Amino acid sequence: MKAIVSLSGGMDSATVLAAALEEGRAAECVGFRYGSKHNPYENAAAAAVAAHYGAPYRLLDLSGVMAGFRSDLLAAGGPVPEGHYEAESMRRTVVPGRNTIFAAVLLGLAQSEGAGEVWLGVHAGDHHIYPDCRPEWVDRMGAVMSAASEGAVTCRAPFLHQTKEGILRYGQARAVPYRLTRTCYKDQPVACGRCGSCQERLAAFAALGAEDPLPYEARDLLPKGEGR
Amino acid sequence: MKAIVSLSGGMDSATVLAAALEEGRAAECVGFRYGSKHNPYENAAAAAVAAHYGAPYRLLDLSGVMAGFRSDLLAAGGPVPEGHYEAESMRRTVVPGRNTIFAAVLLGLAQSEGAGEVWLGVHAGDHHIYPDCRPEWVDRMGAVMSAASEGAVTCRAPFLHQTKEGILRYGQARAVPYRLTRTCYKDQPVACGRCGSCQERLAAFAALGAEDPLPYEARDLLPKGEGR
Repeated sequence: MKAIVSLSGGMDSATVLAAALEEGRAAECVGFRYGSKHNPYENAAAAAVAAHYGAPYRLLDLSGVMAGFRSDLLAAGGPVPEGHYEAESMRRTVVPGRNTIFAAVLLGLAQSEGAGEVWLGVHAGDHHIYPDCRPEWVDRMGAVMSAASEGAVTCRAPFLHQTKEGILRYGQARAVPYRLTRTCYKDQPVACGRCGSCQERLAAFAALGAEDPLPYEARDLLPKGEGR
Repeated sequence: MKAIVSLSGGMDSATVLAAALEEGRAAECVGFRYGSKHNPYENAAAAAVAAHYGAPYRLLDLSGVMAGFRSDLLAAGGPVPEGHYEAESMRRTVVPGRNTIFAAVLLGLAQSEGAGEVWLGVHAGDHHIYPDCRPEWVDRMGAVMSAASEGAVTCRAPFLHQTKEGILRYGQARAVPYRLTRTCYKDQPVACGRCGSCQERLAAFAALGAEDPLPYEARDLLPKGEGR
């Protein structure tokens, strides 16, 4: 079966791609340019991950449509906060409507290409901060996809109830090329190691006693609950 | 309260705008360029309707994102079928994912601008052909908006259970400027009068014994169930 895989360039979606391929799906990967600070780096990472698996990758440009959106994750927003992912400051990185827009576009593509599934990389580590990564959102978005496609398209989120650490464990067992991925939220080529996204990734590798293959400006874990 | 109104340039969304203003909303109108054959004409109509009401209007461009989508409504698709709206041939004018994408973008805009509502012009005449105009879709899309915005954004579809005729009756009582609207699906400045969209509009005016203020190439009503 053909499946559309949302490929951001991060760890989670790279692992989702591995999972879709393991289930025998003919995966078509899609990334989005939407104006985030780390967008050029993550888009390049997504292309590299797709190439690693020999899967087609296409990049769709929503940056004009989302130019008026407000979030510190976006180029037009304030600085990306540093500290632990669960800190309240990380809420400033929510991009309103983002995952709903992505999922909606992937639905339309799936229908246009005769793909029966849309695979998303949302996971439990995102639930606290991002409303559009929670089980409730995934359930409802799946229900929208089903209604809009008359049952032709199903939403898959295989790691919805997994932690980052669980995803990493799954992916390491399958040699997912994490060296090719991009996680940092900042507008710089080398990962900062201090934004919530970097911290969550470093913590997952540390929990498994593994070395993250990416270079970082700083690799130390910050105390939980601290953010600025 | 600020509200985002989806303004396509057609009769229904013009009437929705009138309804939102009547409820005292500060309406911000949004239209989309997405590659449909009638897009330039309907976008211009939307701008004219918004100007009539003194409401701000912005046009967002999804034509690149939706360039690979398949539908005879799109410039890249086959010819727009003619005949009655309920004919099976009209299904070829479904644009996969379209209303889900529009609603998702409007959700993100609403959150970014502190608007508490998104108003959509879906109605009962669309239900047979368009899955993303049915009550089930509206319910689920509203549930997605609520989940993604943590309850901050509500979906309004005041004419969901109204026929085209009912909408016209409501709008005529409020002097909605239907002469400024655009309904025809074809890529031509003057309405054809023979596509399903024109036929449904002409039938609504006829049912009320009113004259449609638009010029048409042909104004006769075709028999139901006939389409090609």
